Amino acid sequence: MEAGDISKGKPGFGANKGVSVLDFVLRIVAFVCTLGSAIAMGTTNETLPFFTQFIRFRARFNDLPTFTFFVVANSVASAYFILSLPLSIFHIVKSGAQNSRIVMVILDTVVLALVTAGASASAAIVYLAHKGNTRTNWFSICQQFNSFCERISGSLIGSFGAVVVLIILILLSAVALSRRP
Amino acid sequence: MEAGDISKGKPGFGANKGVSVLDFVLRIVAFVCTLGSAIAMGTTNETLPFFTQFIRFRARFNDLPTFTFFVVANSVASAYFILSLPLSIFHIVKSGAQNSRIVMVILDTVVLALVTAGASASAAIVYLAHKGNTRTNWFSICQQFNSFCERISGSLIGSFGAVVVLIILILLSAVALSRRP
Repeated sequence: MEAGDISKGKPGFGANKGVSVLDFVLRIVAFVCTLGSAIAMGTTNETLPFFTQFIRFRARFNDLPTFTFFVVANSVASAYFILSLPLSIFHIVKSGAQNSRIVMVILDTVVLALVTAGASASAAIVYLAHKGNTRTNWFSICQQFNSFCERISGSLIGSFGAVVVLIILILLSAVALSRRP
Repeated sequence: MEAGDISKGKPGFGANKGVSVLDFVLRIVAFVCTLGSAIAMGTTNETLPFFTQFIRFRARFNDLPTFTFFVVANSVASAYFILSLPLSIFHIVKSGAQNSRIVMVILDTVVLALVTAGASASAAIVYLAHKGNTRTNWFSICQQFNSFCERISGSLIGSFGAVVVLIILILLSAVALSRRP
């Protein structure tokens, strides 16, 4: 919301250029968020210090398919943010561009759906790992795999941050589209 | 994608009005999708025909908090779609409106995030109910609760349909914003 206020504060001074610069900065923030989430989740791996003759107690992120999806979704999103930076620079230079902004809104929307899907599906599984569910006999695994659970919980933060940034990015694009230079 | 083609097919004939009418129709579709999903999930309830002296085997949607979230998210979304219809009609009448379209884009984006979150979190749990996970000792419950599983799987369809419709709605708003009547 602050973002919108800043750009509205100086309507005389190339307002669309200000919106575009903010767009560029937010894309870098979103890139850092999603890349951080993907790396944090992708390197999660805990081996317990005790083991029996047959089993070694080990938890990795790809024991659960949902976390694999989370890593893929966040990697794709961070790649998209890097690839969209040139287009964002183009919008700073040529702030009257309309068609390329429409393309960007639709790509942003699809990436928003992707990142939200990954983050919330993982959040559902993380909740289950913490609390378990007695009705379905799915027990909490966080007593045993403590650092694993902390890591997977923490890696959600970046992803949810990226969701917020993407909503602001779509708002900024809508504001820029509604104006003529 | 067809949606965009239709409105672009007749650019001379009040293109923004065509976009607004399509917007109105798609909102009704999205309302039906989300309401259907909420009702289908919210009435899911299976009692198995056998029981012991102590336990009755019964599965309801609110045994799993994620499904409660799914019902709430879809109910809120369907209420939003009904409440946004007057604004959509206003856009048909006054197709040059810009500020109200920006408000609509941002609300659509937030609802998109909400519906996607509900649908994908539930999909993660439905997947677990079907397949189970051997590494965490979470076993499939679909052998016992067969009709419960079919019902929760089916109710996801409407929600994912609403996600697609919302992406198209945001695209339509972006197209309408980029034009002047």
